[in-house]
Amino acid sequence: MSNERVYNFSAGPSMLPLPVLQRAGSEITNYGGTGMSVMEMSHRGKEYLAIFNATKEKFRKVLNIPEDYEILFLQGGATTQFAMVPLNLMSRTGKADYAITGNFSNNAYKEASKYGECNIAASSADKNHTYIPSQAELKLDPGASYFHYCANNTIYGTEWKYVPDTGDVPIVCDMSSNILSKPVDVSKYGIIYAGAQKNMAPAGVTVVIIRKDLAGHELPITPVMLNYATMIKGDSMHNTPPAYNIYILGLVLDWLIDLGGVEGMEKIKSKKSKILYDVLDESKMFKGAAEKEARSDMNVTFRTGDEELDAKFVSEATKAGFVQLKGHRLVGGMRASIYNAMPMEGVEKLADFMRRFEAENS
Amino acid sequence: MSNERVYNFSAGPSMLPLPVLQRAGSEITNYGGTGMSVMEMSHRGKEYLAIFNATKEKFRKVLNIPEDYEILFLQGGATTQFAMVPLNLMSRTGKADYAITGNFSNNAYKEASKYGECNIAASSADKNHTYIPSQAELKLDPGASYFHYCANNTIYGTEWKYVPDTGDVPIVCDMSSNILSKPVDVSKYGIIYAGAQKNMAPAGVTVVIIRKDLAGHELPITPVMLNYATMIKGDSMHNTPPAYNIYILGLVLDWLIDLGGVEGMEKIKSKKSKILYDVLDESKMFKGAAEKEARSDMNVTFRTGDEELDAKFVSEATKAGFVQLKGHRLVGGMRASIYNAMPMEGVEKLADFMRRFEAENS
Repeated sequence: MSNERVYNFSAGPSMLPLPVLQRAGSEITNYGGTGMSVMEMSHRGKEYLAIFNATKEKFRKVLNIPEDYEILFLQGGATTQFAMVPLNLMSRTGKADYAITGNFSNNAYKEASKYGECNIAASSADKNHTYIPSQAELKLDPGASYFHYCANNTIYGTEWKYVPDTGDVPIVCDMSSNILSKPVDVSKYGIIYAGAQKNMAPAGVTVVIIRKDLAGHELPITPVMLNYATMIKGDSMHNTPPAYNIYILGLVLDWLIDLGGVEGMEKIKSKKSKILYDVLDESKMFKGAAEKEARSDMNVTFRTGDEELDAKFVSEATKAGFVQLKGHRLVGGMRASIYNAMPMEGVEKLADFMRRFEAENS
Repeated sequence: MSNERVYNFSAGPSMLPLPVLQRAGSEITNYGGTGMSVMEMSHRGKEYLAIFNATKEKFRKVLNIPEDYEILFLQGGATTQFAMVPLNLMSRTGKADYAITGNFSNNAYKEASKYGECNIAASSADKNHTYIPSQAELKLDPGASYFHYCANNTIYGTEWKYVPDTGDVPIVCDMSSNILSKPVDVSKYGIIYAGAQKNMAPAGVTVVIIRKDLAGHELPITPVMLNYATMIKGDSMHNTPPAYNIYILGLVLDWLIDLGGVEGMEKIKSKKSKILYDVLDESKMFKGAAEKEARSDMNVTFRTGDEELDAKFVSEATKAGFVQLKGHRLVGGMRASIYNAMPMEGVEKLADFMRRFEAENS
């Protein structure tokens, strides 16, 4: 058994900041003199409510979320939002616009089609999702109940560099894989949602930021747990919330605030991704999988063009302590997910490893 | 700040075994030499799959679950099951039978009424849910798609002492507050479900045990995350499961197996509840809230009959390290939830405290 921590490039669940894990470990049997673990606390008790409310407040402050938006901590991951969004928002006009730039936005589109008429406003499927459509390419319906897109495509390694202009149509955005990596103008969105397990917390909590007036229009068949109005009314506690996961989110927010908030994260992530993209741009062996203008700062996808060499790279990297670098089967090759908690030194060392591997295998 | 752990009588989330918390803390930054926390592991990676599969196997063994049943680890709590059950099972005949013996079974009934014709097969509302209807009192419809009941009523402190005979109608049972406290003949049930935060794990994972032939008949409006067939096909990993909560469940199962499994738990819980019910039966001050034949071995509800004295009891108990004893507002008085992880000594000391309180306040 090794005592060394590895550099974990998993697409999610993924690395958490070491100080967060150490803090959680230090108080796992007795939180702040309460005589109990956060896992054991009644969600209605004052000890837990203090944690919950502080986490919500930190989240609001970090993303500068206006007061007419509610912050919800739900369950079920982004895939549950794929249904929850149309169940609650589709009733306005019965139709919605979807941009399809990857696997998850396509799943969101398919799920929403159960509840209304969904139109494909744009798709990058023609080039295996290696690019992001431009504003001019979006076929927007002014009568849509909402416009949905996925801000960062984990599998393909692409990221939207602009917020679409949809006029009066509310924008719903899946930010699962780039939330908290940079400032966001929340007021441009109707709903932002994100599973926690990439940039925020252990899997099991989903953050939803919703403009309050969008709630309360659910279809009659909506399960109570998938009703935004119910969740707003109960402050995410219509039933027991994923309390420990929310507590870890609070610790992650403390860590992030210490590093300068999302403004600090933006500088760090830009530097980290540049280190790896510079390797790709200088390399004769490694090629980026995404078009340059669409490159994600969270998921760096690349390949050698030779499947055997790809496999050798992944295998040798794993032995050297760089784990989970195999690309998704829909893209192949390699993928280095470098979320907030991936240390700069992990990226620098991976870049060195890539250069060395190229020199030794050319 | 105190280093002492308290005796936490919360109805849920509630105590976890101290050795489980200590073990989790000891490996929170590096699980088994993998160089990462369980919170950071890809759910598709071999390290996490080993944990997941072992937990499932332990669960199957502990409850002696037949092979034609699948074990699912889902999200959303029992309240999500209130919708998931009818969405998947109602299509057979369009109607279902519900026994209402408390707040949660009533919520289950109301939710299911969105998706079909729900009949009240029995209700204990006439006596504020202080009793459990007998088999003879159940008005069963042989044409029901299923029969639903809640095995233990946390708020009222009552517990079903028999499994209803429903003929060919599948039984669906909410065991959130007494699962793993005693052996269960799973073959008598169609579906057993339970939120984790009382007897199993931190809030955020819901266990579902389902006879496989009951899946695959969902209504067309069923969200993909609320489709049992999808969850069975994906082995609870259609999307990222609440991985850390499942890991803690595995540690709790190890602890439980060491204590003799559910057979061991049954002996312990019978002894623990007898200690408190003996106090009630001998007391001139404290009265049990539930009828004797219906008393729960998990939630002991009682009161003095004097609200001020109740409040004094709760306040002094808290100071003495017995916390979360206030009863639910629907019942009033006190409630001592004594799930599996509540140590025998916690119950013995509470019994002593109650006797002392009575002597000092009579």
